Amino acid sequence: MTQKQGIDCLIHAAYIIPVVPENQIFEDHCLAIDQGKILAILPKADCLERYQPEEVHYLNDHVLMPGLINAHGHAAMSLFRGLADDLPLMEWLNDHIWPAEGKWVSAEFVYDGTRLAIAEMLRSGTSCFSDMYFFPEMAAKAAKEMGIRAQLCGPILDFPTVWGSGPDDYISKILALHDKYQDDDLVRIALGPHAPYTVSNSPLIRIKDLAVERKMPVQIHLHETRFEVDEAERDQGIRPIQRLTNIGLIGDEVALQCVHMTELNDEDISNLANSKAHVIHCPESNLKLASGFCETDKLLKAGINVALGTDGAASNNDLDMFSEMRTAALIAKPVANNAAAVDAMTAIQIATINGAKALGIDEMTGSLEVGKSADLIAIELSKLNSQPSYHLLSDIVYAINSQQVTDHWIKGKQVLKNRQLSPGLEADILAKTKQWAEKIKHT
Amino acid sequence: MTQKQGIDCLIHAAYIIPVVPENQIFEDHCLAIDQGKILAILPKADCLERYQPEEVHYLNDHVLMPGLINAHGHAAMSLFRGLADDLPLMEWLNDHIWPAEGKWVSAEFVYDGTRLAIAEMLRSGTSCFSDMYFFPEMAAKAAKEMGIRAQLCGPILDFPTVWGSGPDDYISKILALHDKYQDDDLVRIALGPHAPYTVSNSPLIRIKDLAVERKMPVQIHLHETRFEVDEAERDQGIRPIQRLTNIGLIGDEVALQCVHMTELNDEDISNLANSKAHVIHCPESNLKLASGFCETDKLLKAGINVALGTDGAASNNDLDMFSEMRTAALIAKPVANNAAAVDAMTAIQIATINGAKALGIDEMTGSLEVGKSADLIAIELSKLNSQPSYHLLSDIVYAINSQQVTDHWIKGKQVLKNRQLSPGLEADILAKTKQWAEKIKHT
Repeated sequence: MTQKQGIDCLIHAAYIIPVVPENQIFEDHCLAIDQGKILAILPKADCLERYQPEEVHYLNDHVLMPGLINAHGHAAMSLFRGLADDLPLMEWLNDHIWPAEGKWVSAEFVYDGTRLAIAEMLRSGTSCFSDMYFFPEMAAKAAKEMGIRAQLCGPILDFPTVWGSGPDDYISKILALHDKYQDDDLVRIALGPHAPYTVSNSPLIRIKDLAVERKMPVQIHLHETRFEVDEAERDQGIRPIQRLTNIGLIGDEVALQCVHMTELNDEDISNLANSKAHVIHCPESNLKLASGFCETDKLLKAGINVALGTDGAASNNDLDMFSEMRTAALIAKPVANNAAAVDAMTAIQIATINGAKALGIDEMTGSLEVGKSADLIAIELSKLNSQPSYHLLSDIVYAINSQQVTDHWIKGKQVLKNRQLSPGLEADILAKTKQWAEKIKHT
Repeated sequence: MTQKQGIDCLIHAAYIIPVVPENQIFEDHCLAIDQGKILAILPKADCLERYQPEEVHYLNDHVLMPGLINAHGHAAMSLFRGLADDLPLMEWLNDHIWPAEGKWVSAEFVYDGTRLAIAEMLRSGTSCFSDMYFFPEMAAKAAKEMGIRAQLCGPILDFPTVWGSGPDDYISKILALHDKYQDDDLVRIALGPHAPYTVSNSPLIRIKDLAVERKMPVQIHLHETRFEVDEAERDQGIRPIQRLTNIGLIGDEVALQCVHMTELNDEDISNLANSKAHVIHCPESNLKLASGFCETDKLLKAGINVALGTDGAASNNDLDMFSEMRTAALIAKPVANNAAAVDAMTAIQIATINGAKALGIDEMTGSLEVGKSADLIAIELSKLNSQPSYHLLSDIVYAINSQQVTDHWIKGKQVLKNRQLSPGLEADILAKTKQWAEKIKHT
């Protein structure tokens, strides 16, 4: 009789979608987890014979898939959810969001707001998020405490804000944070130049040099609206993508994470395709602010990696990556004039492995493969809104909603159990949220 | 001491959104129901003093609003949910949906499929639906049994189907059904010519005459795609809207319910504005099939009533009117190039009172007004994804999801209690659904 191997956890599920390789669905398999990593995905009988798990889950009505990766957002802005809606981008920013930020944003605001955002994301199946906001040290603290994977982009702008006096100050704070989290297992620090219209060439050149020298990720809002592109062409005689290409942020030295990317012409797309740049698509925010359409199908066909983000809850107004994935698949079709554009498997890739590639962590997460971190979610299938089921990948994108996520593991640690976060956490966060809302709404 | 008035039910809620008048929100009020109708909406203290209810509900974390009206769909097709995705309309119809219908649709299929659809709709806050499908007598039976309000459009096509031999046969079956349900309190029978490209002039003229003579509603798929309009112009030298105008289906005699309505030029819009026609917008289906964009903002500004439908679950793939309302608000903005287009209040109207107007039942339902039927839903507010709350109307459209619907009354009868349908119903429907899926998937 062979000795069984002791492991941390074994999860049996009706179906497992590993995402890599694409279109694969394992039926009646188990996923074995040890020391936070995926040890094996094997038929149920083989697993039961081979392993002696500390913990076992039988999920007979569930599918397991990688946790979703929300590649762009402003987590703490969840405290401004619904503060100003049905307004265009610049009016929304100038007359509502920036004044509210000036008045309310503090280290405490960011900590509480990020906790609210993380709770919503853990609940709805997001295992990893990228964030661009003031006081990233507080977002880092919240992410570590709550056990979610995060890329925190320290914001850099030409002008002073509540978090710093200008580019040099922002960059020095970001580098200090980068040193602190250099070897962290969950948190990565990135450079976050806000946008071409808020950061001038000199800091952008320094950011490019630092990105190369320190191998730091860089994320920027880019070509969000036609107005942005038109204004740049008028004032600087050059499109923002070309300007970043000239600086070297778009090219073969830096894997720039370009957020939004509406209003692209063929030369823009060719520039991107010849670079290491990634596109982060935020369809619901783009729709809500009437920013324009990102041509995801065209970008993908040009060989550009497209990932997905919700943007902040002040312009969405939720952080639900299932809804975002569905919107990405739906909107791609009329934009490409092709109902086959961004099919279900592609939409799932955009929301998982492509996000990991964009953040530079695809060796660690984004798919269920042996050796990768056990970042995964379980989805309950037998609900009225997603039955019958003929094609599981289609169901995931077009019929299933985030409330069907029942369980969630990050680095093998269970962060959601039968739809519940850790005891007391949700109530605590909601109470803090109501306190903030009471203050904010009376201003 | 004054005698209190005995009534059936009193519901206290933190907020009540009556929809009419617009932008009104009652705080800390009660809604009184007697004999299936709304008797009063009054401050809590007044209600408790005045009424002696048989039943009382205290919903302190909830908003009450009218049940949503799903003004276009094919309920039984829920049994084909996800059968064929990521395909253009004509390929989807010709190669997948019509063959599957030919093989599987029967009276029993329609009864079971409609029950699945109704269960999903009751659960997600839809109080009234319009349906266009074969065997409408079975849909009528399901609607009556489950207590949902329905407009059932008997389908009319030039060619034979499983339900009849041709236009005369379809029409005579519809008229018999119309006689049967003439005075029904929940079910109304309508004429459902499928589309201009499947129904020739002679039956359309007869349909127009019957609509006038019997005061019957008429619903038709119209201008769903550019292909439909181009083909009509090429083959008949006339756009479908003009053809229906010539026949009198669009005009001042008939209040035609026109579904989809992409590809409208200024003359089309002018024709519609000068008629009694209604537009039923199905944004998610239009996106998924890459059918095109309906210019809802432009139509509304031209004074045309715009209602909302999910279309069938085979092209959506759910019947979730909260998601549909959100998509309608989001997609309107880039289509109008204006982030203020279809604001939150307008989106709520589209999903409620405008639906009632389109179906010709706005004297009875679509808003919470004294004397109207008690068709209403309660939505739980304190969830992570919809807090904090600054503007309730915005929250309803942009942040709240259908899983926050906890309770639902139609004609004063409670059809959903604390997120549960009547005991055993959901399990029974899911079991039947799995039986159908087993058969259908092996073909």
